[in-house]
Amino acid sequence: MTIAIDADRLRADIEETAAFGETDAAEGRGRTVLTGTEANRQAREYLVDRMEGAGLDVTVDAVGNVAGTWTPDGADPDAAPVAAGSHLDSVPEGGIFDGPLGVYAALEAVRAMQEADVSLDRPVAVVSFTEEEGQRFADGLLGSSVAAGDRAVEEALALTADDGVTLEAALSGIGFRGEGCLDAAEWDAWYELHIEQDTTLSEADVPVGVVTTITGITHLDVEIRGEANHAGATHMRDRTDALAAAAELVLDVEAAAEDVVETASDSAVGTVGSLDVTPNATNVVPGRVGAGVDVRDVTYDSMEAVVDAVRDTLDRIETERGVETEFARPFDLRPTPMSERLRETAHRAGGEAGLDTLDLHSGAAHDTMHVADVTDASLLFAPSREGISHNPREWTDWDDCAAATRVMAGAIADAAGAE
Amino acid sequence: MTIAIDADRLRADIEETAAFGETDAAEGRGRTVLTGTEANRQAREYLVDRMEGAGLDVTVDAVGNVAGTWTPDGADPDAAPVAAGSHLDSVPEGGIFDGPLGVYAALEAVRAMQEADVSLDRPVAVVSFTEEEGQRFADGLLGSSVAAGDRAVEEALALTADDGVTLEAALSGIGFRGEGCLDAAEWDAWYELHIEQDTTLSEADVPVGVVTTITGITHLDVEIRGEANHAGATHMRDRTDALAAAAELVLDVEAAAEDVVETASDSAVGTVGSLDVTPNATNVVPGRVGAGVDVRDVTYDSMEAVVDAVRDTLDRIETERGVETEFARPFDLRPTPMSERLRETAHRAGGEAGLDTLDLHSGAAHDTMHVADVTDASLLFAPSREGISHNPREWTDWDDCAAATRVMAGAIADAAGAE
Repeated sequence: MTIAIDADRLRADIEETAAFGETDAAEGRGRTVLTGTEANRQAREYLVDRMEGAGLDVTVDAVGNVAGTWTPDGADPDAAPVAAGSHLDSVPEGGIFDGPLGVYAALEAVRAMQEADVSLDRPVAVVSFTEEEGQRFADGLLGSSVAAGDRAVEEALALTADDGVTLEAALSGIGFRGEGCLDAAEWDAWYELHIEQDTTLSEADVPVGVVTTITGITHLDVEIRGEANHAGATHMRDRTDALAAAAELVLDVEAAAEDVVETASDSAVGTVGSLDVTPNATNVVPGRVGAGVDVRDVTYDSMEAVVDAVRDTLDRIETERGVETEFARPFDLRPTPMSERLRETAHRAGGEAGLDTLDLHSGAAHDTMHVADVTDASLLFAPSREGISHNPREWTDWDDCAAATRVMAGAIADAAGAE
Repeated sequence: MTIAIDADRLRADIEETAAFGETDAAEGRGRTVLTGTEANRQAREYLVDRMEGAGLDVTVDAVGNVAGTWTPDGADPDAAPVAAGSHLDSVPEGGIFDGPLGVYAALEAVRAMQEADVSLDRPVAVVSFTEEEGQRFADGLLGSSVAAGDRAVEEALALTADDGVTLEAALSGIGFRGEGCLDAAEWDAWYELHIEQDTTLSEADVPVGVVTTITGITHLDVEIRGEANHAGATHMRDRTDALAAAAELVLDVEAAAEDVVETASDSAVGTVGSLDVTPNATNVVPGRVGAGVDVRDVTYDSMEAVVDAVRDTLDRIETERGVETEFARPFDLRPTPMSERLRETAHRAGGEAGLDTLDLHSGAAHDTMHVADVTDASLLFAPSREGISHNPREWTDWDDCAAATRVMAGAIADAAGAE
């Protein structure tokens, strides 16, 4: 089934949303939209307004997830709906497509189906999840974790930001602490369109990607303790330098991931993304280093190979350098395969629209990971210029936004029983 | 000449000073005394009070250096004085001996000579220099750099802290923006007693060290620029990871210094003490890293060997990793030999007092480096327990404080022409 979407209307919604929390950027277009801020309120209110404008039945749940449901004439209002959407929050100084593209592509798909007067068996719901990026209250995927039953509502509402504000207070403050709880298990199917954040599509010159598996993600918090001491007065042989030990960890994580890429799984990645040095003064031998390690792949075995390398490094630097080490694993999601049935709807919709589609994996986490635990889920990708994201230079051509939205609209119509 | 100092009076002065800016410490005794703070005002006012109590003629110069001069009966008031002292400021959460020991040892030496009624040819001045630690306004050795003519008064007063306050305003705020400028070139000799901050004395079980050379110090500010990108969506082979590149620098600096220790100069040290990662999030490939490198030794050639290794590493990581690098050298002091004449006075005073003395070098910078540019200068060390300093666990036994003060008092008396 092909649906003629309105590319200009889609673009206008994304550009309006880009103005909320807009930041100065030397190049590109940046925005900072953290949960519960004024920019977040504006982005949410604009969405509700646009949903109501399309005649959707809008609800806000206890953790601020927003859903707008369209029940077409002739559809069974009690049938399990097909849901689609993404998120409106961003990382600090993030880009304008990461999140909003998926929310407004879903809304545009509904508007286009309304205008095409398609006949569906099931309602269609447009969803925006709270705090996908995990910048203020949790590690990420907050709203979807609650909607999938992986986290209790009360636990989520009690999450507290560094400034002491709870999620509940933050949502109340912007008028988005609603009632009840969105239940993804009640959906027949779920689609999310997102930017790829990598170069597979742009290098292949294909406008739409169909994700086979979302990689698993492990975060490790590593602490390395040596002894802070005077950089001038402490002989090289008398040091227990926590930063030199941490430097071995950084290089070992990189080498271990590269080794897995070479020998086992091309998609494995391992990153030391953060390093906090104490006391962090030029003239003091570092006494303590905290490191944040991110490990991902499409199989849990290859993730474990990198985690094992971290364990080996910590053992070695304890023995060879005399540092003390600890590590915690605060975040661990296994790889998530996408629904075969829904992947086929996407490829078929692409074929019918004359748009190439390509199977690929997702290296980034998405709300779809949680939804896939409780119902059939599909993740579609639009190309990212140079693969850049979480950055004002993030960019997806408007034509590509439209093409991917067209494919998702066709797939949704298919899944919802369009004739 | 031996001078009977009052160990209890010395200890009382150091302990009173330890109370200003006192910090909570799990172990040991910490203090934070930055230039121009309330704690700094208290420490300075206490010193002025104690100097006046000993009948010294107290002056405060334009950059806050405090001097108290004693002209003994029979001395030529116009003769070039023998000066001695150190500093009262500390690093954040520093120890209680680093600085105050030298100031109050000098004052105690004067009081002891007064009580012993020694006959001297020259006046003796007790000096406390402003901002030795360089925590708020400059890289360090601020007051002594002005007193030695290495930095203009106006330039020093215009130095601005991160909070926008100038040195002039900070000193005015605590009532220590005086007039004129202490001129170290007018001194016949200079002595500073300091804690060793290393383990040479404690391992040799010798109470007093006589420094032969203060090591030169170079600080390098290195910047490494890669590309910030999504840690999950960016393939290992598509990364330009600034932190992985910086990790090579950290290990290469360590290896280069160890190599110089093995092959050329046992006292060489090289440290990456600070590392600032941007954006420093677990799930983002680091885009930029700033590193602060500290290089020291008793010969400039061996320092250059480590700096050359930094250059080589930056060239290599540019080629091999595609990062861009820059480095600046904001601080560069060559090694400073101490006065033979004054070293002999110290060894002689130790011998006469029945206290062992030991020649060693200083790996840390001290105000004495600047003073040595314009007059004969000597640096004496007291033992540091486990070599720890810049830390609340910094400790020097009170008996060792007294022994070193006794040696310095004898040396000062000798240099000032005691009969």
